Amino acid sequence: MSLTQQTALFDIPEDINYLNIASLSPSFKPIEEAGIKTVLEKSRPYTISTSAFFDPVIRLKKLFAQLIKADDFRRVLTIPSVSYGMATIANNIQVLETCEV
Amino acid sequence: MSLTQQTALFDIPEDINYLNIASLSPSFKPIEEAGIKTVLEKSRPYTISTSAFFDPVIRLKKLFAQLIKADDFRRVLTIPSVSYGMATIANNIQVLETCEV
Repeated sequence: MSLTQQTALFDIPEDINYLNIASLSPSFKPIEEAGIKTVLEKSRPYTISTSAFFDPVIRLKKLFAQLIKADDFRRVLTIPSVSYGMATIANNIQVLETCEV
Repeated sequence: MSLTQQTALFDIPEDINYLNIASLSPSFKPIEEAGIKTVLEKSRPYTISTSAFFDPVIRLKKLFAQLIKADDFRRVLTIPSVSYGMATIANNIQVLETCEV
């Protein structure tokens, strides 16, 4: 798919050229839709099912496991902050004198 | 203001009684509006001004300073995580033997 064809994925007018793809990258249309859906759900939180807390995370883990070619998606964990994850890993790895880091 | 009058602040139909005010509290209408505005801005990030990064934080600091009766709003800081803030404070406080904690 060429870059020209990908403009349809974004809600950006034709006369605008926007080149920042770092922290202020433009959202894809499905991301915008998911964002609005989520904001509206929070106004009527009784419409949020219990499975909404877990199913998307399991789907995410499965897709990420595919991406990194992991056999078991349950080995993928979501954490609230990279620093917490790195600290947990550091505390649980035993580095022996013979190890090469 | 009585509880009955406050129903107008939320976008919840009259026939629904929703009592959870913990993590799944319903958004106030202005919060819903701000949320949707923000999601839409991210689709067209070239509309986000530089001041949008700073002005709301300064306003928040000023309001919070009022709330805790702090003379100078610049003594209020926003941090990405409580744990980071507590660690920074702990690293910068000198506790003497004569101190009472």
